[in-house]
Amino acid sequence: MSSQQQAPRGRFITLEGIDGAGKSTHLAFIRDWLAGHAIDAVFTREPGGTPLGEKIRELLLAPETRVSLDAEALLAFASRQQHIADVIEPALCAGRWLVSDRFTDSTYAFQGGGRGVSFERIGALEDWVQRGLQPDLTLLFDLPLEVAAGRMAGTRQLDRFEQEAADFHQRVREAYLRRADSEPQRFAVLDSSRGIAEIQADIAGHLQKLRERG
Amino acid sequence: MSSQQQAPRGRFITLEGIDGAGKSTHLAFIRDWLAGHAIDAVFTREPGGTPLGEKIRELLLAPETRVSLDAEALLAFASRQQHIADVIEPALCAGRWLVSDRFTDSTYAFQGGGRGVSFERIGALEDWVQRGLQPDLTLLFDLPLEVAAGRMAGTRQLDRFEQEAADFHQRVREAYLRRADSEPQRFAVLDSSRGIAEIQADIAGHLQKLRERG
Repeated sequence: MSSQQQAPRGRFITLEGIDGAGKSTHLAFIRDWLAGHAIDAVFTREPGGTPLGEKIRELLLAPETRVSLDAEALLAFASRQQHIADVIEPALCAGRWLVSDRFTDSTYAFQGGGRGVSFERIGALEDWVQRGLQPDLTLLFDLPLEVAAGRMAGTRQLDRFEQEAADFHQRVREAYLRRADSEPQRFAVLDSSRGIAEIQADIAGHLQKLRERG
Repeated sequence: MSSQQQAPRGRFITLEGIDGAGKSTHLAFIRDWLAGHAIDAVFTREPGGTPLGEKIRELLLAPETRVSLDAEALLAFASRQQHIADVIEPALCAGRWLVSDRFTDSTYAFQGGGRGVSFERIGALEDWVQRGLQPDLTLLFDLPLEVAAGRMAGTRQLDRFEQEAADFHQRVREAYLRRADSEPQRFAVLDSSRGIAEIQADIAGHLQKLRERG
C-alpha cells in the first residue's frame, strides 16, 4: 500500500540501566500506556532481536570460545546492524513506534565503562553501523550504587567477588551518566530509588512529550 | 625464556586470489621452501583460524539466517580480530613467520568488489581492527577471466547463472588488482596462467627477498 510509504516516521525509544533498576516493570507500564493511547508499537531487545542476533548471543555465552573485548564489540554491532535492518528501520518507516530494551548505550556502559573499551572506538563502530540513526528518547533507569549494594548485600560486608561486581557496576553507572550528560536532549534520567508510581508519572510525561513532538 | 621476547619479529605473508587460481598448490610449495630454509612458520587461513572464527563461519553458512552485507563485514572483522590476537600476533612476536591463506584483501575483493560494500567502509573496519598491522608480503594469484571462464565453461556459451558468476569474479579480480596498484610495495601479482615452475620461481624470489630484508 502506498499509504504506508507516506506514514510519518515512528518514534524510537530505548530503555537503559543496570540490571535490577526496574526496566522490566516499567516496560510493562510503557506497553500499557502506548496501547491506551492507541499507538501501534513494536517491542524488541538487545542483545538479540533477530535470528542472527540470537546466534551471536549463544556464541558469546559459550564458555569455551575465547572472544576478545574488541571481537565482542564487533559482534555486538553485527547483531545491532541486522536488528536495525530487519526490525527497527522497517517499523519506524511504517510509522510504528519501536521500543528496544537496551541499545547502543549498553555497549558504551558495559563494554566501555565496565570493561574498558574506549568510547572513541565504540563511537567509530556506532557511526559505521547506525549512519546517524539515534533513539528519539532514551529512558535511563538510574539507581544509586548504595541502594543497589544495599539490596545485594543486606547488612553484610561485601566479599571480594561482590566488591568487584560493585566496582564494575559503579563504572557502568558512571558511563551511562556520562552518556546522558553528553546528550541531554535524548536522555531522560529516572531516579529508580523512588516509588514506582512516581517513576511512572515521569515516564508518562516523557511519552506524552514525545507524542506531541512534531 | 627471555630470548623469545627479544626475537626479531617474524614475517607476515598472505595469499590472495579468486578460487581456482592455484593458491593451494602454491601453499604447499611455500611450506616446503620455508622448511628447506629452516624458517619456523605457522600456517593459518581465513575465514576461520580460531574457534570463534569457525563458529562465525558456520553461522554465515547457515542458509536460514539472514545476514546483511554490513553485518557480514562486521562478522568477518570480528573473526579477524580474534585471529590476530590469538594466532597472528603471538607468532610474529615470537619471531615465527606466519602464512595466512586469505586475509583482509579478500574482504575488499569479495565483499567490496564482488558485493558492493564500499572500500572506504571496509577501510574503516580495517583500521579499527588492525591498528596498522599489515602483511609484509601479499602474493596475489591472478588469472585472466578469459582463462577462468574457459576452464569453467569449455567451449559452451555461459548460462545466466554462470554469466553472473563470471561478472562477480570479474569484479573480484578488478578489486584485487586495484588493491595491488595502491600498495605495490606489499603486493606481488603473479600471473597464474603461466606454468607452475615459472610461478614457483617467482614465489621463491619474493620469499628470498623477504628473508634478506633487514
